[in-house]
This record gives sequence, C-alpha cells and structure tokens, in this order.
Amino acid sequence: MKRVLVLNGPNLNMLGVREPGVYGTVTLATIIEGLQELAGELTLQLECFQSNHEGAIIDKIHEAYGTKDGILINPGAFTHYSYAIRDALATVQLPTVEVHISNIHKREEFRHHSVIAPVVIGQICGFGDQSYALGLRALLPHL
Amino acid sequence: MKRVLVLNGPNLNMLGVREPGVYGTVTLATIIEGLQELAGELTLQLECFQSNHEGAIIDKIHEAYGTKDGILINPGAFTHYSYAIRDALATVQLPTVEVHISNIHKREEFRHHSVIAPVVIGQICGFGDQSYALGLRALLPHL
Amino acid sequence: MKRVLVLNGPNLNMLGVREPGVYGTVTLATIIEGLQELAGELTLQLECFQSNHEGAIIDKIHEAYGTKDGILINPGAFTHYSYAIRDALATVQLPTVEVHISNIHKREEFRHHSVIAPVVIGQICGFGDQSYALGLRALLPHL
Amino acid sequence: MKRVLVLNGPNLNMLGVREPGVYGTVTLATIIEGLQELAGELTLQLECFQSNHEGAIIDKIHEAYGTKDGILINPGAFTHYSYAIRDALATVQLPTVEVHISNIHKREEFRHHSVIAPVVIGQICGFGDQSYALGLRALLPHL
Amino acid sequence: MKRVLVLNGPNLNMLGVREPGVYGTVTLATIIEGLQELAGELTLQLECFQSNHEGAIIDKIHEAYGTKDGILINPGAFTHYSYAIRDALATVQLPTVEVHISNIHKREEFRHHSVIAPVVIGQICGFGDQSYALGLRALLPHL
Amino acid sequence: MKRVLVLNGPNLNMLGVREPGVYGTVTLATIIEGLQELAGELTLQLECFQSNHEGAIIDKIHEAYGTKDGILINPGAFTHYSYAIRDALATVQLPTVEVHISNIHKREEFRHHSVIAPVVIGQICGFGDQSYALGLRALLPHL
Amino acid sequence: MKRVLVLNGPNLNMLGVREPGVYGTVTLATIIEGLQELAGELTLQLECFQSNHEGAIIDKIHEAYGTKDGILINPGAFTHYSYAIRDALATVQLPTVEVHISNIHKREEFRHHSVIAPVVIGQICGFGDQSYALGLRALLPHL
Amino acid sequence: MKRVLVLNGPNLNMLGVREPGVYGTVTLATIIEGLQELAGELTLQLECFQSNHEGAIIDKIHEAYGTKDGILINPGAFTHYSYAIRDALATVQLPTVEVHISNIHKREEFRHHSVIAPVVIGQICGFGDQSYALGLRALLPHL
Amino acid sequence: MKRVLVLNGPNLNMLGVREPGVYGTVTLATIIEGLQELAGELTLQLECFQSNHEGAIIDKIHEAYGTKDGILINPGAFTHYSYAIRDALATVQLPTVEVHISNIHKREEFRHHSVIAPVVIGQICGFGDQSYALGLRALLPHL
Amino acid sequence: MKRVLVLNGPNLNMLGVREPGVYGTVTLATIIEGLQELAGELTLQLECFQSNHEGAIIDKIHEAYGTKDGILINPGAFTHYSYAIRDALATVQLPTVEVHISNIHKREEFRHHSVIAPVVIGQICGFGDQSYALGLRALLPHL
Amino acid sequence: MKRVLVLNGPNLNMLGVREPGVYGTVTLATIIEGLQELAGELTLQLECFQSNHEGAIIDKIHEAYGTKDGILINPGAFTHYSYAIRDALATVQLPTVEVHISNIHKREEFRHHSVIAPVVIGQICGFGDQSYALGLRALLPHL
Amino acid sequence: MKRVLVLNGPNLNMLGVREPGVYGTVTLATIIEGLQELAGELTLQLECFQSNHEGAIIDKIHEAYGTKDGILINPGAFTHYSYAIRDALATVQLPTVEVHISNIHKREEFRHHSVIAPVVIGQICGFGDQSYALGLRALLPHL
Repeated sequence: MKRVLVLNGPNLNMLGVREPGVYGTVTLATIIEGLQELAGELTLQLECFQSNHEGAIIDKIHEAYGTKDGILINPGAFTHYSYAIRDALATVQLPTVEVHISNIHKREEFRHHSVIAPVVIGQICGFGDQSYALGLRALLPHL
Repeated sequence: MKRVLVLNGPNLNMLGVREPGVYGTVTLATIIEGLQELAGELTLQLECFQSNHEGAIIDKIHEAYGTKDGILINPGAFTHYSYAIRDALATVQLPTVEVHISNIHKREEFRHHSVIAPVVIGQICGFGDQSYALGLRALLPHL
Repeated sequence: MKRVLVLNGPNLNMLGVREPGVYGTVTLATIIEGLQELAGELTLQLECFQSNHEGAIIDKIHEAYGTKDGILINPGAFTHYSYAIRDALATVQLPTVEVHISNIHKREEFRHHSVIAPVVIGQICGFGDQSYALGLRALLPHL
Repeated sequence: MKRVLVLNGPNLNMLGVREPGVYGTVTLATIIEGLQELAGELTLQLECFQSNHEGAIIDKIHEAYGTKDGILINPGAFTHYSYAIRDALATVQLPTVEVHISNIHKREEFRHHSVIAPVVIGQICGFGDQSYALGLRALLPHL
Repeated sequence: MKRVLVLNGPNLNMLGVREPGVYGTVTLATIIEGLQELAGELTLQLECFQSNHEGAIIDKIHEAYGTKDGILINPGAFTHYSYAIRDALATVQLPTVEVHISNIHKREEFRHHSVIAPVVIGQICGFGDQSYALGLRALLPHL
Repeated sequence: MKRVLVLNGPNLNMLGVREPGVYGTVTLATIIEGLQELAGELTLQLECFQSNHEGAIIDKIHEAYGTKDGILINPGAFTHYSYAIRDALATVQLPTVEVHISNIHKREEFRHHSVIAPVVIGQICGFGDQSYALGLRALLPHL
Repeated sequence: MKRVLVLNGPNLNMLGVREPGVYGTVTLATIIEGLQELAGELTLQLECFQSNHEGAIIDKIHEAYGTKDGILINPGAFTHYSYAIRDALATVQLPTVEVHISNIHKREEFRHHSVIAPVVIGQICGFGDQSYALGLRALLPHL
Repeated sequence: MKRVLVLNGPNLNMLGVREPGVYGTVTLATIIEGLQELAGELTLQLECFQSNHEGAIIDKIHEAYGTKDGILINPGAFTHYSYAIRDALATVQLPTVEVHISNIHKREEFRHHSVIAPVVIGQICGFGDQSYALGLRALLPHL
Repeated sequence: MKRVLVLNGPNLNMLGVREPGVYGTVTLATIIEGLQELAGELTLQLECFQSNHEGAIIDKIHEAYGTKDGILINPGAFTHYSYAIRDALATVQLPTVEVHISNIHKREEFRHHSVIAPVVIGQICGFGDQSYALGLRALLPHL
Repeated sequence: MKRVLVLNGPNLNMLGVREPGVYGTVTLATIIEGLQELAGELTLQLECFQSNHEGAIIDKIHEAYGTKDGILINPGAFTHYSYAIRDALATVQLPTVEVHISNIHKREEFRHHSVIAPVVIGQICGFGDQSYALGLRALLPHL
Repeated sequence: MKRVLVLNGPNLNMLGVREPGVYGTVTLATIIEGLQELAGELTLQLECFQSNHEGAIIDKIHEAYGTKDGILINPGAFTHYSYAIRDALATVQLPTVEVHISNIHKREEFRHHSVIAPVVIGQICGFGDQSYALGLRALLPHL
Repeated sequence: MKRVLVLNGPNLNMLGVREPGVYGTVTLATIIEGLQELAGELTLQLECFQSNHEGAIIDKIHEAYGTKDGILINPGAFTHYSYAIRDALATVQLPTVEVHISNIHKREEFRHHSVIAPVVIGQICGFGDQSYALGLRALLPHL
C-alpha cells in the first residue's frame, strides 16, 4: 500500500471562512474526508498535515523521506516565495503534485508565478476542492 | 449525454515524433482512444479536433457555441500568444479546461505564461498523456 | 467611385454573442448594413470581409493592392501580436484606418498596445459600432 | 441644445507654427471655426478653451460640472503625465472624447501611452485637424 | 540527391512591391529561380513554398519529416512570435537554416529578436536576396 | 501658538462630488471645519489652501518658509509625479506630513508610488477624512 | 468594550537595540505601555503579541477571528514578502491598520513596497513610536 | 544685439535657501547679476524669468518666438517630466541650452533623465552657478 | 576565548541527501565536526544551530546579542528572501560572514541575489564544505 | 584585386582549445588557411589579424580606412559590449560582415545581443568555421 | 601654472572622418590647437592624449596623480561601459570635467547613459568642438 | 610544486591610494608579499601580474594554459562587463577563484553583478586584503 503525504500551507485551515467568493464554503476537514475516501478506492494511505509555519512544512517534507512514496501539496501563499519549501521538495526527491483551489492565473499578478512548480511533476489549479482529488489521481502512476 | 469538444493545437499531431525526451512516445491517436474510453465511462460524447491553424481552432470554438457543453483544450504553442483563441473562448463562454502534456514551468521562460489560462476554469500540466484524462474528469462537474 | 476594403479580424463574427457587457448586442451584419448605407451617402463602394484566420486577412490585404483605394480594419485580437498583418499593410501602402469597438485602454494591459497602429493613418477606439462609421469618415479624405 | 466644452492643452495655441512636418499648417483658430460650423449642423453649443496651464484646464473641467453635457479634449503633452487632469475628468463624470492631431503611435515611445484614455469614452488620433470633427461626431450620441 | 524545402513566410510573395527601400525590387520568383540554379550546381533538389498562413507553414514542415533532408526558411514576420513554427521545426529535427533579406538588427526593436533562431543551425541576415544563396550553401554540409 | 499650513492638491475642491465610491460624500469645507476644531483643541493655528495649480502650491510652500511651523499636505494626483512640489518641500525644510483619503495601495498601480513621501516625516493613507485629523496629530510633536 | 489585537513582527522585540539611528531608543515594552494607556482612554481592550515567526503571527490572526474587533499590525520585514500574512488578514476580514515606525519610503528600495497594504484599511508610517498611537486612533471608528 | 531669454524653473527662486549642501549659498539674484555682466561683455541682451508654474514657462517660451534669438533654461524639477515644456521648445525652434547647477548624475535615480535634453543644442550640468555663464557662452555661436 | 554562532538555514540538515550533484555527499554533522576541530586550533568556541524555521534563526540571532562575538551563517534558501533575517543581523550588529556550499552564480537566476549580503562583512561561495572553514578564518580578525 | 581585412576578437586565437563542445576542434590557423584559399578563388587579397585587445582592433579598423575595401569580423565577446568597436566600424564606413562560429541565440542570454550588428551589412552565425567562408562570399558583392 | 590632462577616448583620432553628419569636419588636431590657445589665455599647461585603448587611458589617469591638477576627458564610447575608467578617475580624485561633441541625449538609447558622470564635477555635451573650450573654462575654478 | 597565477585587474596597482575609505591603505605590493609568504607555507609557486589592460589580462590567462595549475583573480571593474575575460577563463579551464577586497553587495548597484563568477569555482568578497589569502587557501584543494 503506497503512502502519500498531503500537505496544506498557510490559511488553508480557514477554508470555508476565508474569502468564500474565491475559495467556496467547503472546509478543509470535508476535503480531507473526501480525499481519504478516494484514497481508500485507490488503496493509498494518506497522512494529512496543515500548517501556517513554513518551517513545519519543511520538517514534514524531510520526515517523508524514506517513509512516504509521494506528496500532494497545496502550498497556499508559500507558492509564491518559499524557495525553502522548493528546496525541501528537491531534496527528498519524492514524486510531488502541486494543487490550488482557485485558478491562480485569474487573480492578482503575484499569484501567477509559482516557485514550487519547477520541482514538481505537475500542477493542477482552479477546480475548487476537486483539485485535490485530481491531484491524487495524477500522483498515482508516479508512486 | 453531455458533449465535449477536445481541441489540440499546433504540432500535437506529431506527438510520439516530436522531442520524445519532453513529450513521450505516445501518439495523439492513442491518447484520443484512451480519452474516448474514459468518455464512455463518464457517459460523455467527445468530438476531437486537431489543427496547426489558429483560425481553424477559433472556427471550431465558435461552432461549439450551442452545440457543445464544454471544451478540453491543449493549445500547444498558441498557449503563449494567441489572444485570438483566448477571445474565442471568452466569447462562447463554455466551461473550458486547459491541459498540457509537459510541466510548462520546467521549460523555457516563454512557456511559463499562458494567455489562455485567465479565461478557463482551471489548468492541468505536467502529467503526460494522463493530463487529458484528468482534464476530462475536472470538466465533468462543470458541464 | 472609391473602393474601400472593410476587414474584421477574429471573433468579430460573434459580435452580439461575445461578452455583451463589453461589446454590446449589435451583430456584425447590422454594423455592415449601417456601414453600407453610409458608404452610399459618401459614394464609396465597400467590400466587407471577416476571418478568424490571420493568413486569410493577409491574403485579402495583398488582393487589395491595385484594386482598392483604402482599408478600414478592426484587427480584433490580432491588434496585439500580428506583425504579419502589420507588414501586409505596410507592403500595400494603401491608406488605412484602424478601429476598435471597445476602449482598449480601459481593459487588460495587453490590449493597450497595438502593433498595427504605427503603420496606419490613425486609430479610433471606444465608440461601439459607431467606431466603424467614424473610421469610414476619417478615411474618406485620404482616398 | 447640448453644450460641449472643447479643451486644448499646452502648445496647441501654436498650431501652424509648431513642427509643421508633424502637425500641419492649420491654426487652432481655423480648427475651432470649422468645429463651430459643424456644431451648428449638429445643433451643439461649443465653448472652446486652450491653456498651457494644467491647473487652468482642471479648473475649466470642474466648471463644466453641471453646466456642460460633454467634453472634447486634446490634452497635448499632458496626455502622457497629467494624472491630475485624468482625476478631474473622472470627478465630473461627463462624457468625454480624447483627440490627437498626430498618430501618437508613430512617434516617440513616451507618446504611445495616454494616462487620460482610461477615463474617457474613446480616443481618436492621427487624422490631423479632422480628428476634432470626428471627435465631436463621436461624442454626439453620448450627450 | 539531397532534397531541401525552401519556406517563405508572410508577405514574401509581395517582394518587389513591399517597402522597396528596405527589401529591394527583386521578386520572390526571381529569387527562387536563382536558387534553383544554385541548387543545380550543388546537386540539390528544392521544393519551394510560400504562405501567409502560419498553419500552412507548419503543415509543410511536418510533411518534410521523412521526405526532405533539410530546410531553408525565411519566416518573415513569424520570426518574432510564432512559437508554433519553432515547435514544428524542433519536432521534425531536420537541419534548418534561417535567412532574412534585411539586417533585422538595424530595424524596429521588435525585429531584433527571433523566436526561431534557438532551434536552427544558424542564422544569416542582411544580404538581400543573396541571403538565400548563402543559406543554401550553409545548409549543404549538414544534409 | 504654532502655525500649520494645510495644503490640498488638485480635485480635492471637488470632494463629495468626485467618485463618491472612492472618496466618500464629505466636502472639503466640512473636513477643514473639523480640522479647525481639532486645531483649536491642540492650540494650533491653521491656514488652509487648495489649488489645482502645481505652481500655486509651490508658491504657497515657499511662502511658508519663515512664517509657518509645519505643513500638512494631501498632494492629490501630484503625489505621483510632481518632483517640483517634492523639491519645494525639501527646500523649505519644514516638518511635513503627507495624507491621503483613500488607501492608495488598493487602487491603480500608478497610485502606489509617491514622489513626495521620501521628503516628509511620514505618510498616512486610507482613513477617509479622518486622515487629516491623524496627520495633524502626527505633526504636532514635530512643530 | 472593543477588543484589539496588536501585532508586532520580526525584530520589533529588539526595539531600542536595533539600529537606533533608524528606530530610536524606545523599547517595545514602553510603546505597549503607552498604547495600553491610550486604549484605556479610548475604552479599548488590547492584546499585544510579538513574534519573529511568520506562522505564529498567522495563527494569532486566525485566533482573532470571532474574538477580536480589529487588528493593529506592524509586520516588520514581513511587510515586504509575507503573502501568507496578507492572506491571513484577508481571511479573517477584521478591520486592520498597518503601522511602521520609520518612513519606509526614505529607506532601501525593497522597503518601499508593502504586500500587506492592499488588504488593510490604511497605512501609517514614519512617526516613530507615535505611529502606534495614531494607528489605534485610526482604527477606532472602524471597530 | 542678440536677445536671449533666461528661464529658471521651480524652486530656483529659493536658491541659497534650498538644500545648500547641494546647491550652494548663492542666490538667483546674484547669478542673474553675474550673467547680465557677462551678457554685457558678449553684447547680448538678456530677459530673465523665473516661475514655479509650468504654464507660465510655456507661455514665456511662446512669447520668445519672433522676439528672442535664443534660450538659456534651467528647468529645475520640470527637467524630469514636463513633456509640455519640451514641446514648447520644439515648437518655437529657437537655439536653446539646458543648464543645471548640480551634477544630476550624482543624485537620485529620477534626476538622471532629462525629457528636455533631446530638443536642445546641448546640456551643461554640475558647475554650480558657473553653469549659467558656461551656458551663455555655449549659446553664443548659435544665435 | 571568542564565541562564534554557526547558523545553518533550511534543508542544510539534509546535506548528503539533497541533490548530491550540487551539494556533495558530506553531511552537516561531518562539516560541524571539522569546523569544531578548526575552532580548536583557532581557540574559538562554537555553538552550532540548524533550523528550517526562519523565526527560530531570528530568535537565535537575537540570543547571540551580548553572548557571542561573531556569526557564521549559511542562510540556505532564506538567502534570497528573508529580509527578517537580514534585519535581525543588522539589529545585533555582530561581525557576520555569509557562506554558501555551491557557487550561487552558476545556478538558477533567483539564487544570484542575496538579501543578506549587504549587512555582513563578506560572502564566500562555491567551495563545498570548505566554505565553512574559509568563513571561520575570514571571521577571525573581526572578532 | 579587392583587399579585405579579416578581424578576430578575443580568445579566437585559442580556437581548438576553447570549449570544443561549443566551438569545435579546428584552429584559427586552419580557418585562415581555408579562407586564404577561398580568397584566391574569389581573387581577393586578405589581411588577417587577431587580438585580445579592443584597442588594437580599433587601431586596425582605422588603418583599414583608405587601404582596404571591406572587413570581415568575428568580434568574439566584444560583440556584446564594445561600443568602441562599433563606433570604429561606423567611422571608417567600409562594407563589413559580422560572423560567429556558434549560434549565439542558443547560448547564454547575454550572447543574444550584438552591439556591432546595427552598423554592419549583415550577420552570419552558427555554421562553425564555415561561417567565415560564407561571410567572405557575402561581402564580395559589396566591395 | 596649473597643469591639465586632456584625454580623448576611442575613435576621436578619426574626428573629421567619422560620421561628419554627427561630429562635424573639424579634426582632433585642430581642436587641440584651439584648446592650447585658450590654455595660453587662461595660463594653463595642457598635456593632450588620445587612445583607443582603455588600459592606456587608465595608465594615463594614474600617471596624472601628483603630476596634474585636473582632467578634461571625452571618453568616447567608453562613456557607456568603462567602469574601469570610472574607477581610475575616482582613484586619483583630481577635479575632472566630462565633455561630448554631440548631444548624447539625441542619439541611440545606449548613449544616454554615462557611467563616468557620477565621478566627475560636471558634464558638457552637444556643442561640437566648442564643448572642449567650455569644459576647460568649467574646470578652471576647481584647479 | 603547484603553480598559481595571481591576476589583478584595473586600478588595483593604486591600492592604498584609491578611495581608502573603501579599500584601506594597504598597497598591492604588501598584499603580494603576504601572499608569497602564505604560498611558501602551502608550497605553492606564485606568478603575480597586474594590468589595467583587459587584453593583457586575457593574454596572461592564455599563457597560463599548460604552464599553471590554477588562477586567483581580482578582476577589479572588469568583473562587471568583461565577457572577454570570462571567455578566456572558460577557454583555459584552469581552476579559478575570484576575490574582491570590498563587499561588492554593499556598494553601487552595478557592482552587485559579476560576469566572471559563473565560470569560476567560487567567489570571496569583503575581507579586505585578507580576501587574497582566503582565495589561495580555497584554491589549494582544486590544484
């Protein structure tokens, strides 16, 4: 059974609260629940972790080295400046998929650019909470 | 039964020939075949069209107005400069998903920017031919 | 009787459908009709042509060489990147007026710049379908 | 009878003197005369004002608030940097048309950009003194 | 006998008409004739194709795959924005030489940059119609 | 009793008229009245001056040299380009506070940058007419 | 009684130590003390929090959701790159005022730009420790 | 006897007051006096004019048309943005020399660029009040 | 005996694991061991600290104030965006040397710029683990 | 018999040694030999000069004035910054052809731009040592 | 008697030959002669040196240290990139005046910027060979 | 015994004279002396060469090919623009260390970028004359 680390970056714990016009009203708990169900179907084991601390996310990525088979990450606002998370992903070299709830290309200029994208397999954005499910399916053949 | 237009832009007819290091050895015919199969499962009807002519793609998008329920598009190199295709998609206002075979963020600078992305639901890139299947699944709830 | 070629670029066949908030509900046929009427008053002979194909527009411009006395063009999205149309206009050296339905300076950044403008007599934008009539009047003394 | 304020910015009092290669030999007085004639035909009442003082133009725009139905403006060199005139036009919210004698896109780089254009109905440039007449016609349906 | 595809992009059919100050008065037919003669001397077989349609040029490049030994291309204005033609050349991986009649570095800023150049063997510009003959000679040892 | 010059730049005489969505419905007269009251409490003597003329504002700043103890300025649109006002403030070297009614960082790109800010004590923006009162309080300890 | 969260970002715990030429010799404790006093006068309840950890500041902002009525923040160096804090403030949508001790427009280029400013009510900078008191007063009417 | 208009832009009336570290302690009156003396030697007739009003400087330049033989101008801060003064100088086409007291290349970035310089004979900067005398000598052979 | 704080930023705990092509196979523990040995020779006392948390590094720098005589720092990816660490170093004003294992000028564009470098004595990069030893030697005369 | 100066810039004396992956293994002596042979065929007289000194190349260009009929130049790295060599070529106004061994558009960003190209007849790059022979042929009709 | 070093950079030995449209027909010898005459009047001793070698100019500047009282320099094309000459002038700290024959602000973009200007007293450009005489006069009071 | 070439670029012969505030009062002779001593300890043989001539430095680098085992270079101002020296170092492919006396990141913007750094092992800057000794030690294991 393949093990996948599901990482959520800053403010994603506030989903359902935060700018519902942009992010919808579904909470992170509900998304994780749905993802666990899908993981069951795909016989994957998920560990889900959310943090507003860049360092905690990096620690978690390091911990995945040798204990996980892949990573699904929504880096939140860290997408746009955390070269440290980018380096962490490059370090452990686990297959990784980057997802975003909103279509980052429709929003402020600074959100158009991801410093994470060049070190992952691929990127999925714009499909609301469905982005996570798509990301897990995308990751599957790379595990 | 929902109808989806699957559009492929320039040089995608050469898949399997073109830079296999970047795009793999699968041909477009094989991809379409697999996509038709998935469409069957999802009870979707696909029309697939490839062209190296920007104008032909625009004509096809217009034709989809009132006859299709959604669009799945891999605009190829037009991704980076065809404001005319962007306007065509904005005109017909059908739910559209943009897909790319390669991770455009890992390649030349000019490929990092999509002029199409701001008018679609979302974008999926980097998962090889699997990007199409993911795109179709992503489109489904918006039809 | 002076002969004028009226050219419309990509997506202008969809006028009345496309983003009515931006472009209004008048169709291209109605605009052409009104323009023909004005041409009658000004004793001008119009040939009207619309295409979503850059190459077809260039072919048409070449054809105008020696057979038309002036050009009225709304290049649509080609305004912003078709150096080939720009060169075509520079080649035939017919007096040309560029028109736009919307005020391109109120819209997305990329629409503020016209690669066509430096090779025409002048540019008119923002007056809805009235832009065409103004353009024809502007062209008249240069025929 | 609708009332229109015709504004001319810096150096336009020198028309006929200034760089005749670029602006022609017609004087501002002659242009105004022709414009008055056209206003008669269109049953419009014109007030014409020229100043080399940015502040005087702003004062005049404020004065138009509640006393005029529309504005025709050739901001001269203020086109390229007077955010104060832009704000004045946005303040009074009268329908406004921006005109230029020369094709600003054929000249120095700095003349390609208008800070005024985003707050007016539309822009007309390149038709010599005819630009004013076209501008008045363009303004008419918005009064 | 080696086979070479000679491609000419938009507006090159108008050579001798178009801006003679920049491009001279020689027609494309005359250039092709001279090139055929040189091809005879070098025992090369030429197929010459001109189009104002980007898509037609891409189709032709694909067609050359497996049927030609090299390509000589003057992409005209497509030089500066057709990433689709660039990708087509990269796809078929035939030895290709890019030529220009005028010295593109002496002209407008936008003409200084070629999006085609990074995928060809080399570039020759500025020698008038002689550029083609030099290009054919340059291609010879790579066939 | 300390004397403060309160300067208002272009279009601020139109407060209450101008874009009420952005600037509110309070008039400049009302703001000045409130400010006079606060000045009374703080035992300050105010001279209030508004002009749409950059030169008049500069003259007033010069006049303040030796006759005032500090300046409170809302430069309006001059904020973004009047290096002449900046130099005037640097010349007289009176303690100066810059205020803005709206949050300039939430608006158009060009409003984000103040050429005045580097020569004042500090800047206050976004608090509506309250910005003036805050500015006066901020100035107090520097008089 | 309204409750306000007072947030101080990295290095502000070192006030009085850090570059006294720029920031003065007053300590953060002294500032907080003065602020508490003012809060008393304005019948506000303050909770003050300083951290050098971006994540801790975000956690604190989330915690304020539903428990505080407004936020006064000096983001320190996070001002210039923490899109995560910006998103946190946008998420909880509490009225927020941004303050800076120094005039950020007089210092290094990178300090001129605040990524926080577009999501707050307003910004106050340059008045030393007095910036906090002004910020609290500015916040009051928005609670 | 040749007639020269000596123009001084904003804040130059404050010479001797303004930033003496940069501009020295000599007043404008003293400079003019010295210049008049030199004019005597060179048998030139000077008219000296200073204004903080851009419009007043433009009016003065127009007035010089036909009544003066040359212009010596220190545009002060208008150097960096007054395209209107640039156009005024281009309009009257009198030989003009631009002078600056300080070395503008040693100061803030924005002072390095002059929008006036491309329309004058030449530019002299950095020699304190001596710049004026040098400018007059430089103008002499062009009168 | 002088005391030196040796700081290592994010992902440096993974040395020997992370991209061995770029960083080599030596672990951080081995580097620290070697550095301790050199410290012995130079009669320096080292405290070594690594963290993936920006805040923890800032806390540590503050702690060094008054307890250490100098700092040797490899900020890892924080090099490129942590203005907070830069400010922390500027705050405590201890002599600091910045080191990098790889030659940052040979790698991705974003790694060429250090926001830390302007506040340290000097920078050493490209010498693998030897960079630390060189850094300690470089720091010595500044303690 | 026409005389041609063949100039080679810095490091070209090291051809065959320098980065053979980029420049091949042929030495400059061999290239010159081949070029002399071709010159014989074309009845041209060559003088060949290589220097690593910008000044020596300029001196040589000046010397060519009145003694040579044309110049063939490979400026090496001076291509990208020697405005002095550019001016030297513009000074003597001899027909000049610029050649490069490698395709400069495939290499580092800084090599894409030639400051020499705007003052020569044309440019040839990418054909290895064959570039010289092509350059000589290209120069021939201009002598 | 004060001693002045007069330095002329690359291609200035070709004055009278080089682009006479831009630089006139006067030779450097004639300019130097005139300058010597003026030096006589001003009781200055001149040493004049021209070189196309950057290094030779730097050597000469160093040599001036302790043996000359000032420098008059026309750096030619080195103006735009020779940071080495800039450093040489900063090293010897002799009063220096920079002169140019043409108005560099009227020419190509790259000529608008001088890397030398920030380390000299002042700059004079555009007055033909008269620029030298003006420069010598400008230097006089600083010797 | 390994042989090292120590290269010093322009103006470094003036060390001790040049801007002592930036570079200190130690002369180059003293630095070389100290370096020779260290070379003795490390059993290295040094050849030291300084020149203000870019070409002379390139010649010296070529000469090192096959006769030296490594290079220690302080390129002085050539650091920022001499692509020719960069190419020379890339040509000979000897292990090279780049050193700077001052911390180039603390100085003018143009000094922050080294065109040399991407072709050397590593870079050391900011440690005064000690930079050379550190550089020699850094080079040792690569000889």
